[in-house]
Amino acid sequence: MSSRPRVVIIGGGFGGLYAAQSLRGAPLEVTLVDRRNFHLFQPLLYQVATGGLSPGDVSSPLRYVLRRQKNARVLLAEAVDFDVAARKVLLRDGEALEYDFLVVATGAQTNYFSNQEWQERAPGLKSVEDATEIRRRILTAFETAERHPEGSDRDAWLTFVVIGGGPTGVELAGSIAELARDTLPRDFRHIDTRRARIVLVEGRDRLLPAFSEKLSRAARQSLMELGVEVRTDTMVKAIEAGRVRLEGPDGQEELAARTVLWGAGVRASPLGETLAERTGAETDRGGRLMVEPDLSLKGHPEIMVIGDLACFTHQTGSPLPGVAPVAIQQGKHVSRVVRARMQGKQSGPAFRYSDRGNLATIGRSRAVAEIGPVKMSGLPAWLLWVVVHIYWLIEFENRLLVLIQWAWSYFTWNRSARLITGADGRGGPADHTESGGTESSREGSREEKKEEEAA
Amino acid sequence: MSSRPRVVIIGGGFGGLYAAQSLRGAPLEVTLVDRRNFHLFQPLLYQVATGGLSPGDVSSPLRYVLRRQKNARVLLAEAVDFDVAARKVLLRDGEALEYDFLVVATGAQTNYFSNQEWQERAPGLKSVEDATEIRRRILTAFETAERHPEGSDRDAWLTFVVIGGGPTGVELAGSIAELARDTLPRDFRHIDTRRARIVLVEGRDRLLPAFSEKLSRAARQSLMELGVEVRTDTMVKAIEAGRVRLEGPDGQEELAARTVLWGAGVRASPLGETLAERTGAETDRGGRLMVEPDLSLKGHPEIMVIGDLACFTHQTGSPLPGVAPVAIQQGKHVSRVVRARMQGKQSGPAFRYSDRGNLATIGRSRAVAEIGPVKMSGLPAWLLWVVVHIYWLIEFENRLLVLIQWAWSYFTWNRSARLITGADGRGGPADHTESGGTESSREGSREEKKEEEAA
Repeated sequence: MSSRPRVVIIGGGFGGLYAAQSLRGAPLEVTLVDRRNFHLFQPLLYQVATGGLSPGDVSSPLRYVLRRQKNARVLLAEAVDFDVAARKVLLRDGEALEYDFLVVATGAQTNYFSNQEWQERAPGLKSVEDATEIRRRILTAFETAERHPEGSDRDAWLTFVVIGGGPTGVELAGSIAELARDTLPRDFRHIDTRRARIVLVEGRDRLLPAFSEKLSRAARQSLMELGVEVRTDTMVKAIEAGRVRLEGPDGQEELAARTVLWGAGVRASPLGETLAERTGAETDRGGRLMVEPDLSLKGHPEIMVIGDLACFTHQTGSPLPGVAPVAIQQGKHVSRVVRARMQGKQSGPAFRYSDRGNLATIGRSRAVAEIGPVKMSGLPAWLLWVVVHIYWLIEFENRLLVLIQWAWSYFTWNRSARLITGADGRGGPADHTESGGTESSREGSREEKKEEEAA
Repeated sequence: MSSRPRVVIIGGGFGGLYAAQSLRGAPLEVTLVDRRNFHLFQPLLYQVATGGLSPGDVSSPLRYVLRRQKNARVLLAEAVDFDVAARKVLLRDGEALEYDFLVVATGAQTNYFSNQEWQERAPGLKSVEDATEIRRRILTAFETAERHPEGSDRDAWLTFVVIGGGPTGVELAGSIAELARDTLPRDFRHIDTRRARIVLVEGRDRLLPAFSEKLSRAARQSLMELGVEVRTDTMVKAIEAGRVRLEGPDGQEELAARTVLWGAGVRASPLGETLAERTGAETDRGGRLMVEPDLSLKGHPEIMVIGDLACFTHQTGSPLPGVAPVAIQQGKHVSRVVRARMQGKQSGPAFRYSDRGNLATIGRSRAVAEIGPVKMSGLPAWLLWVVVHIYWLIEFENRLLVLIQWAWSYFTWNRSARLITGADGRGGPADHTESGGTESSREGSREEKKEEEAA
């Protein structure tokens, strides 16, 4: 081994991957550790969940992305603990990785707050497996409705409740509506999929609270045009088998719904908690670690935390949002800090987030966008969304294909990746909120989800 | 319900799907029953297993394919038994489907002969789940080798044994060789993936026994140019954890190999056995049902068996091979028989297979083809293979995308669908022949495979 400083980066999401790339050409040994062998392009995951794209279309092998970066290697492994005094990362398989600089970017996972039991009944959308599970549930619901006699149970199978009015919830609700209205109608003989009911529930008084009020209204309008029922100021009180209880401005309401999806919140990955214990770092309510202006931990200038795992408050007084642009910019900032420290400086330059605006898509030709003072909605915003994502995807090279796939879906209204896969996908419809699949396979997937983001 | 004759078709593979389509416009009620919601384009499944295509690229939703055929409906359900006296198909969920004509096309599943315990150690390639499992094993093997110190165990992780020299085995071995030689080399830092050893084992004296000897030699030559070691006249004696024992012309040999894949044989789906019991139909050694010249069962002119489940010997004295063109032509023949019977005829016209030739691909620009007296190999055969598959895929409409994906891979040498997914894909490399994954999730997947083809 050489004596060049070793940088260990944990997590191959936007933060970790851009951190690794920003160190290209530096006289360092960079090791990127992830439990998965691919980077997931999360902004398009909802397309996988609704059958528009395949998992392979929104993933790039980490080794492939970094193949030309000579000072970087990829390690498929799970970090489980830290020895911060000895500067070591401990891996699940018993090995230890020494570091001179450590970058932790293990992101966030779906948060059910104090209702962990909802996890099984209302899956979140963070991993490829989450997406194919949601896809399975949505498609199985239509299949089951097709086989049910007309009546309330058929209606419950045709009712989809999406909890959370942030970008994930809005995108999911819009896509399900398009699937039901445009893609599926001709496929079924007994049900009219256009009559499917899609309900989007948000606890606050408007959708997309990170956007301006005007755009929140535009988003709501677009969703309503697609036939989505939007309930703001509404809290979820209970999720039971085939039923959701809501409490809104007009009192309590019970919806008979067989498919419930969760986009209401995230919390920091469990590895963040371990890191906080080992370093004494403070965390916020969501489990994110408070970082110094240069993204390092207090008392540990050699450890940086970035992306959804970091709580950065030095710019505006409130934490930066957990979105891809923040993670990317923080990832790129890592190289500045490392270079400064290698030049003997006590601390790195302060991170500054440059907010280039907000974008959310609602469906085909429908989106909302906010770039500084400019606000747009409808087709112009959607075209902007497409251009931005094209530009972004091209950084991952051969992802151009995804665009061709998109263009294709756009002109044909088809969604070609409508596969029901996994153990539960066999043997016909089942009540997926209660039974479905063997006990053993469900145990497996439950465990998976729990450990999801502890890369 | 109308009083039009009811045709129930079990299985949405090539046979069942073409049978349903051939009945388009006829005054009938057609019900296509399958456990899965999609048709699988099996000839390209090896591309999924080696990361070239995503599962969604080689699947079409059955409902989508049949959406414009007004007399057909699709039922996502599992057939488990028959009451042939009452003309009913019994479904797993307790329902029964009445029929006037029954078409059984549930195909074949991987056959381990008397070595059922090899199933876990050497997966076959019949379903989407098989393909992603093989993909997981191949990619994990390279990942694990990368982390192993130089030595015999690393070499075992870089050794791939493919059992069976038919089209599946030849395509798999060729693709793994291309993956190792052309796609992966730059991705790894510690191993030279080009040194991976790929061994193709065939019990008979040549590869592709369905082809002429000249083309067998050409296929062997192409594989050797790709670096594949071909062992003919060689039997597998044992598959153990990390070891395969072979017996060939030069005596016994033991290979240290962590990845073993099975392409050596298939047998009829278990539902065929049930049908034989209920109807008294004879079966051949592979469990296929002997059919009459019009594809019906003896004594049951209302029941037809087609595709890989049927043993048809009336044309040449020996059974037709279990390939897609036979299944397709038999599927199309179903409508002729049904129409003849509806006109009051005792039996339908005899089926005649029109052999349009044999085609097998070995790798990029390498294939062998045989069309009547014309024999080709190399680039011309490969171009023919591409043209035939383009033509074929276009029948499934928007599958044109697959071609774009292909063209892309062709020019970039990349394989973009290199995801390690599933329970075992987390937490880094593992010995996938013995441990790997939680016990519960392995139980689940084992059960899945067993029931695979009982559509």
